[in-house]
Amino acid sequence: MSSAAATLSEIVRAAGSHVPRLLGLVEQRLKTLAAGHGPVLAAHAGDTIAAGGKRMRPLLVLLAAGPQAAREPELIAAAASVELIHSATLVHDDVLDGAHLRRGVPTIWAQGGRALAVATGDLLFSRAFSELTAAGSLPAVRSLSRATSALAEGELLQRQDAWNAAVPIERYLLRCELKTARLFEAACELGAQVARLTDAQIAELGSFGRAIGLAFQLLDDVIDVAGPASLTGKQRGADLLDGTVTLPLILARERDAQLAALDLRTITTPEQAEELCARIERTDALAEARARALRVVAEAKCRLDALPLEAGQRQALKLVGDSVADRTA
Amino acid sequence: MSSAAATLSEIVRAAGSHVPRLLGLVEQRLKTLAAGHGPVLAAHAGDTIAAGGKRMRPLLVLLAAGPQAAREPELIAAAASVELIHSATLVHDDVLDGAHLRRGVPTIWAQGGRALAVATGDLLFSRAFSELTAAGSLPAVRSLSRATSALAEGELLQRQDAWNAAVPIERYLLRCELKTARLFEAACELGAQVARLTDAQIAELGSFGRAIGLAFQLLDDVIDVAGPASLTGKQRGADLLDGTVTLPLILARERDAQLAALDLRTITTPEQAEELCARIERTDALAEARARALRVVAEAKCRLDALPLEAGQRQALKLVGDSVADRTA
Repeated sequence: MSSAAATLSEIVRAAGSHVPRLLGLVEQRLKTLAAGHGPVLAAHAGDTIAAGGKRMRPLLVLLAAGPQAAREPELIAAAASVELIHSATLVHDDVLDGAHLRRGVPTIWAQGGRALAVATGDLLFSRAFSELTAAGSLPAVRSLSRATSALAEGELLQRQDAWNAAVPIERYLLRCELKTARLFEAACELGAQVARLTDAQIAELGSFGRAIGLAFQLLDDVIDVAGPASLTGKQRGADLLDGTVTLPLILARERDAQLAALDLRTITTPEQAEELCARIERTDALAEARARALRVVAEAKCRLDALPLEAGQRQALKLVGDSVADRTA
Repeated sequence: MSSAAATLSEIVRAAGSHVPRLLGLVEQRLKTLAAGHGPVLAAHAGDTIAAGGKRMRPLLVLLAAGPQAAREPELIAAAASVELIHSATLVHDDVLDGAHLRRGVPTIWAQGGRALAVATGDLLFSRAFSELTAAGSLPAVRSLSRATSALAEGELLQRQDAWNAAVPIERYLLRCELKTARLFEAACELGAQVARLTDAQIAELGSFGRAIGLAFQLLDDVIDVAGPASLTGKQRGADLLDGTVTLPLILARERDAQLAALDLRTITTPEQAEELCARIERTDALAEARARALRVVAEAKCRLDALPLEAGQRQALKLVGDSVADRTA
């Protein structure tokens, strides 16, 4: 937490004081949107949005746009809408996973049940499109709807791949792209659209976002195996217990014949998961997966040099890349 | 089924042969969209869309637009998108209700589980927005996002009201509006937008759709209590067993002190539900609820007279109203 805060202050130092001010306005807007549908939604959606975390996606929208005084309402709407979509997917994911806690807060699913959680997710989802449409940009709606289609497809692929330890690496990477990278891409596209960049430049900033999102997911999957629980607040190997096969196991299977022969369904207790994680770690798969993520971030940062950004804005976007690369929990 | 078919042929006779041709194109487009995301989705979403029923919402889009040869792609996209949203809500409703069958076909939830069904619903939802955005109309996206927000809000209210037999009639009507009427409204708005009517006329056609949608839901709720199961294919009083309090019970409670004192949670078997339905029927609540729905349809039909529609188009829209009023299963 303190390291993330330090990074944010560095980012602000690079990008300018408009960033924390705009992030504050996005926060207010999200609160207003959550409160605008009666007390039940306010309680549940408000909690979810409040517990939503680091606001990486809205931050990317703001940084990709740069200071846009004349178009602030459009920018705030874009930043709020990507966070609403992110919140919606968290709410639905908690239903899918039967998760009781998220960031230490009881999930909507745990508090109010499946029906409340599915409907709350649907509402957050719809509100995101309303918000963006009210701001009046069709290309923005297009970017967001492409990203939300991808999110759902990624979720479907992940369910299809469940318990399949032999899943090919390309398929795993496609899942990461659909489930995570595309919304990061949309965030950067939305910001670049507000800044009225050319289509080619919008696509290029989008590719930066996509790469950062991919790295974010790769490292998320490393952290699941690396732990420790004391730092992450989660059971080590939680994904594996769920049947979700990620890069560390995919790489480790190539190096350890016993792992290659493993039937994931036999791993059912936290102790077994812990032991499996330790075995994966001994193959050096975690280091390799981490190295792959760092390469992706480095390449993404290079992309920024060709874009017509202000020096501080470029620096701030690179720092977001660094903050993704540095994450350990 | 044969009565509905007869009505469709009457509607076509009034509106013109472009209607069945365009409905065919909408059908094709829906199939393409369902098939465009790999075999898993194609199997599940394809089944859902195919089992989706009467295509009332796309029909309303087409009829509200009238023949629009120059803007057919926009019209098809609008009609397909409302049906995709409708399909998405069916898929999610089946998760919420734990429903095994829909129109005699196993639900996605029953076939593939909660996760697959939530993700499939989310994908259909996203595809609807992509489809509409690709057709390039921001007002259309606005109409649809308003409707989808309403759908989710209605679902939330219904869960909040569950088992509360003393729910006020105004609250019940609000739920019907949110859950059903607003998507009918959006369908008519979308058609009117394609026809480039004025904002006032678009709103007026929207109000027609909203009224038809309200009547549709009122009669749906009457049919749940009226049965018989041999005609509807569903347990009589299925809503009551679910804790969903609808107009027949609300009206019957005003006339029957024993019903007013009833705790709905004590109704747990099909036999008890059947008995409760018979008791509601004896209060004449079903006739009153039906009469209310017919009044709503009659008023809606009157609205059409002030609009600049072709005679055949107006007649066809009125026939849709009649088909809603006539429904018995």
